[in-house]
Amino acid sequence: MPNKIVIALGGNALHSGKSEPTAKAQLEVVKRTCCQLAAISKQGYEIAVVHGNGPQVGRLLLALETAADTVPPMPVDVCGAMTQGYIGYHIQQALGAELRRQGRPLPVLTLTTQVVVDAGDPAFQNPTKPIGPFYTQEQARMLEQEEGYTMAEDAGRGWRRVVASPKPRRIVELDGVRLLWDHAIVIACGGGGIPVVEREDGSLEGVAAVIDKDLAAGLLAEQMEADTLLILTEVERVAIRFGKPDQQDLDRLTLEEAKRYAAAGEFGKGSMLPKVEAAVAFAASAPERRAIITSLDRAMDALNGRTGTLITA
Amino acid sequence: MPNKIVIALGGNALHSGKSEPTAKAQLEVVKRTCCQLAAISKQGYEIAVVHGNGPQVGRLLLALETAADTVPPMPVDVCGAMTQGYIGYHIQQALGAELRRQGRPLPVLTLTTQVVVDAGDPAFQNPTKPIGPFYTQEQARMLEQEEGYTMAEDAGRGWRRVVASPKPRRIVELDGVRLLWDHAIVIACGGGGIPVVEREDGSLEGVAAVIDKDLAAGLLAEQMEADTLLILTEVERVAIRFGKPDQQDLDRLTLEEAKRYAAAGEFGKGSMLPKVEAAVAFAASAPERRAIITSLDRAMDALNGRTGTLITA
Repeated sequence: MPNKIVIALGGNALHSGKSEPTAKAQLEVVKRTCCQLAAISKQGYEIAVVHGNGPQVGRLLLALETAADTVPPMPVDVCGAMTQGYIGYHIQQALGAELRRQGRPLPVLTLTTQVVVDAGDPAFQNPTKPIGPFYTQEQARMLEQEEGYTMAEDAGRGWRRVVASPKPRRIVELDGVRLLWDHAIVIACGGGGIPVVEREDGSLEGVAAVIDKDLAAGLLAEQMEADTLLILTEVERVAIRFGKPDQQDLDRLTLEEAKRYAAAGEFGKGSMLPKVEAAVAFAASAPERRAIITSLDRAMDALNGRTGTLITA
Repeated sequence: MPNKIVIALGGNALHSGKSEPTAKAQLEVVKRTCCQLAAISKQGYEIAVVHGNGPQVGRLLLALETAADTVPPMPVDVCGAMTQGYIGYHIQQALGAELRRQGRPLPVLTLTTQVVVDAGDPAFQNPTKPIGPFYTQEQARMLEQEEGYTMAEDAGRGWRRVVASPKPRRIVELDGVRLLWDHAIVIACGGGGIPVVEREDGSLEGVAAVIDKDLAAGLLAEQMEADTLLILTEVERVAIRFGKPDQQDLDRLTLEEAKRYAAAGEFGKGSMLPKVEAAVAFAASAPERRAIITSLDRAMDALNGRTGTLITA
């Protein structure tokens, strides 16, 4: 029976778009999420959790930019590290309580995690990931000149800084995950990991970038030789012709189908595409490995084969 | 030979008052600190690091308050969690590089750490620890009414929020420290730990408080059955009649002397006093345990008995 699982938690597992963007409201959403995680643990799965941090790091960057005349803003890598502490703390607290309530007390531990990206990754030549507040065109030009930022117009709403979204190559603190795995639920690679590049002497340096958390979860699952990669998102199943009258939800995806649909542009860039890519890479990495994409509420059903989209080799 | 050591890093090990209060400037100071930590590791000591977070959490709270009209501010416990991620990340990066350079590669891992305090701790009746920005008296009155904050006048410079500084009672993630200790340098209880209280059902809840990081380090050292508690601060030795013409630096302190001097008001509240208290509690917890208070630069010399103040039973 497969039992090592890496769970990638999307934005809606941590934050409700409907509620106030406060830490208190987030904690309430996290508590509901942790009921699901505890139930999965109770079924005997050994869990590592990789969470997103989009709204949290967005609000942090916005606050720091707003206060820039009073306090020097923090770089993007440091903001990523801060959200790992913040979100990890909330999951530790909520999941710890839920595990105890369900009669399965286990340590829940967060490791601050750096993830190495390739300084030569083509993503750095074409930054696409918008972060932080909106600016006027004039402000945007100034930030390009003074800070060396790359700025881009965002859907008519103004100008934003864009950073690269390079591929995760190596999880620096993987040894830590390995040491804890058999004894605890480990939270690692939060927000995709703190992006760092490796210098010639082997030292690491933070970079302004955002690593996709599903790809980081896939890499963690592969390196830890997990059996299952479970990617939780807004929808119950992956679909083709998404949002069209003839939308078709998929129960299963072979690697070939996934690649074909991806090449045909069936999956949204920055949303479903990286999830399918992460799922395919993991399923392809060894026989008997399975990836599942589903919604938080249906996670248990999907693990038991009753819903979700299953991706296997 | 004693070899398990908990090192408490004070503000000056992480941040230079002379330099810009930026993340970049902090990283440079952390790099110098990590040369010392790596040298201690190379001598065969097994290290856990507990760092302070005063300036970092202060700047974060100030930025969040400044931006409060744009982004809802974060509670004090969440800000503490964020600084654990931030400072832990910097130490991981800098210490990892220095250990490699000195030919002793070891994983350096940060655990997000909650520390339980007693909801009935008398400190909650008398909050004394100022945090965040300065306000006018009028603003202070409004914050008292609207947010339920306790505000206090701060040395003629204006009004600030004050929070309690309760005693650390239990380190929630102690199991994690134990699992990692033999294989890695562990960074834990950053900023004294994220302060939480325990409810009747065993669940934890964050509170607005600041735990003294030296007391947290002492508790960690005691619980981990460490041999040495090394408290690094601004001065090379503990002194009595500090700052007076007849100031006397102390090479050694017995538990009785320490208690007597403390009772006589020889040690500054919120500065040397909690360090001495932490040292005394640890030294008293079992025979053969030693606590040392010294400066960062003299850490190796103090461990080898050439300087610093040694506190033993």
